[in-house]
Amino acid sequence: MKIGILGGGQLSRMLALAGIPAGFDFCFFEPKAPCCAEALGSVIQAEYDDESSLRAFAEQVDLITFENENIPPETLAFLEQWKRVYPDRRALQVSQDRLLEKKLFQELAIPTTHYFAVDGRAELEKALAQTGYPAVLKKRRGGYDGKGQYRLNTAADLKFISDEHCRHALLEGLITFDREVSLIAARNEKGEMAFYDLCENKHKKGVLFATVNKRQDPLFPLARSYVERLMQHLNYVGVLTLEFFEQSERLIANEMAPRVHNSGHWTIEAAMTSQFENHLRCILGWPPGRTDSLAYASLYNIIGRFPDIKKLAMYPELHIHHYQKEARAGRKLGHVTALSADSLGCFRALEELLSGS
Amino acid sequence: MKIGILGGGQLSRMLALAGIPAGFDFCFFEPKAPCCAEALGSVIQAEYDDESSLRAFAEQVDLITFENENIPPETLAFLEQWKRVYPDRRALQVSQDRLLEKKLFQELAIPTTHYFAVDGRAELEKALAQTGYPAVLKKRRGGYDGKGQYRLNTAADLKFISDEHCRHALLEGLITFDREVSLIAARNEKGEMAFYDLCENKHKKGVLFATVNKRQDPLFPLARSYVERLMQHLNYVGVLTLEFFEQSERLIANEMAPRVHNSGHWTIEAAMTSQFENHLRCILGWPPGRTDSLAYASLYNIIGRFPDIKKLAMYPELHIHHYQKEARAGRKLGHVTALSADSLGCFRALEELLSGS
Repeated sequence: MKIGILGGGQLSRMLALAGIPAGFDFCFFEPKAPCCAEALGSVIQAEYDDESSLRAFAEQVDLITFENENIPPETLAFLEQWKRVYPDRRALQVSQDRLLEKKLFQELAIPTTHYFAVDGRAELEKALAQTGYPAVLKKRRGGYDGKGQYRLNTAADLKFISDEHCRHALLEGLITFDREVSLIAARNEKGEMAFYDLCENKHKKGVLFATVNKRQDPLFPLARSYVERLMQHLNYVGVLTLEFFEQSERLIANEMAPRVHNSGHWTIEAAMTSQFENHLRCILGWPPGRTDSLAYASLYNIIGRFPDIKKLAMYPELHIHHYQKEARAGRKLGHVTALSADSLGCFRALEELLSGS
Repeated sequence: MKIGILGGGQLSRMLALAGIPAGFDFCFFEPKAPCCAEALGSVIQAEYDDESSLRAFAEQVDLITFENENIPPETLAFLEQWKRVYPDRRALQVSQDRLLEKKLFQELAIPTTHYFAVDGRAELEKALAQTGYPAVLKKRRGGYDGKGQYRLNTAADLKFISDEHCRHALLEGLITFDREVSLIAARNEKGEMAFYDLCENKHKKGVLFATVNKRQDPLFPLARSYVERLMQHLNYVGVLTLEFFEQSERLIANEMAPRVHNSGHWTIEAAMTSQFENHLRCILGWPPGRTDSLAYASLYNIIGRFPDIKKLAMYPELHIHHYQKEARAGRKLGHVTALSADSLGCFRALEELLSGS
């Protein structure tokens, strides 16, 4: 059985590492070279609109999935002619457009931030009159890791906003929150579902820096009910992530990702089945694997510069993940997960080592 | 960093799967083609006495280890001229010769079975006069998974024993025991050590069929003291396994393996650090990773025929390992590990499915 993945980044790399033990082969379709999954399968290097390459890809694999939400939906539609593609195109389309996403959350009575669709400077000013300052202008499409977001603290900041910035955008009043959490879940075609423990996330400059798994978090049942509703509505197949802000014990949905998620990398070592293995199980039509946390986990991203690996190796409770990508400022180059059997560990020195990276 | 492994079987495959996440590359030196590790690194296909191929291997790797004890010690001696090789040649030599192994156990006051060295038919008969029947004749070298062992129930069985069988052999009285256990441990050059929970093993026709991890087993401290003594004496670097028979709360050492071991495959999912990751950590000079069991694990080998993978997939607590080897009677083709968070699971139907294989 050969599984085709659109995209050849670290998520594809970790999907392959989860599938190879069970005997699966992988083929990655990726426009850029080199790609960090390439050691773990064959690669077709071509653009997402290159129909003859897509055709060749579909012919050599048994089943198709994707690792990021920047794949054009047309690519999926084209591939669907020959092979099953999971998750469904609709989930991808919703996740690509903040406006569709917010509307879907509203339709499903999942609380989300107040927002105003903005298309041009006049609409921006009208929306600002409603939200007041500070507010955040976000592009409807293409933003991730804090990109495509512009914070407006006072009217003076408007001079940094170009006409392009306020086209196909939306404006939200800046939200204050107690913490950021995410829930990762898996669902197969039969509707069988499994949910991981809630992830508590810390961001730096809009990029995830640290996650811990919160065992028996009081907000888990609420988060679970929202994710369940969302997955059932979309007839979702695979792993899905929903990010929330917590505000006085309420959960406010921020965004969804129709894929395995950075805040779930701790599941590789600390859950009974990893998010990667579960994504494969679900797209294969298997029941989702057990999602119990087996340990307390602290996950840290390695961003921009990989520290001396020998310093990381000194921690006997740490697992090192190096994506074998070229270092570049702001780029996710790897992550580490520290485990503790009985309580959440405290890793100040490690945090400092990684903050400097 | 590229790690060279002598041998390209499933143990090399799992070593590579444990090292690739941290960014290591692998090169396998293996006489036979195809080999089941080949998708995970480069392969040099040559005999173990092919000096120019060994030289090329040593040149392209930073560090060398081996996955099985059938490597000639001369191969290690040759490679040591250029690169560090772990574990040490002496541990390999002892493990290759049952007589040296028994003598070492005796020297270290590690209880072992009574035995008589046998070299020819006359010595066999003299030894049988001491042991009585039933007894087991074992070749000093080359036996594994029950191969090279001949059981003698009565004098009538002597007619099945050839002159070759009783050359370079040893005879043991048949031992009765309560259970078979193994202890897996890791040690680095500085002498830092870590020990996994005791494994309780069931064999079928001389081949390991099932293992469970025994958390807080009363015999763990005793087993640990023997393994500690053995590793310190050998100045051992890497993962080592010692197999025992338990007889009325005594442990009788059966044999050692200077490598990761089949009875430790459950550590991939159920220990804080797997035996494969720990072998790499130790040969790299890193402190061994934490060895705590995070779950109760039941490991079953898949021998001779791989069952329908969809039947295995029905278990949400199961992890499937398919070594991508050609099926052949008696051959280890894969294994599965079932996890349980709170107690040892009972997997009758699964056992039946796999017994039929």
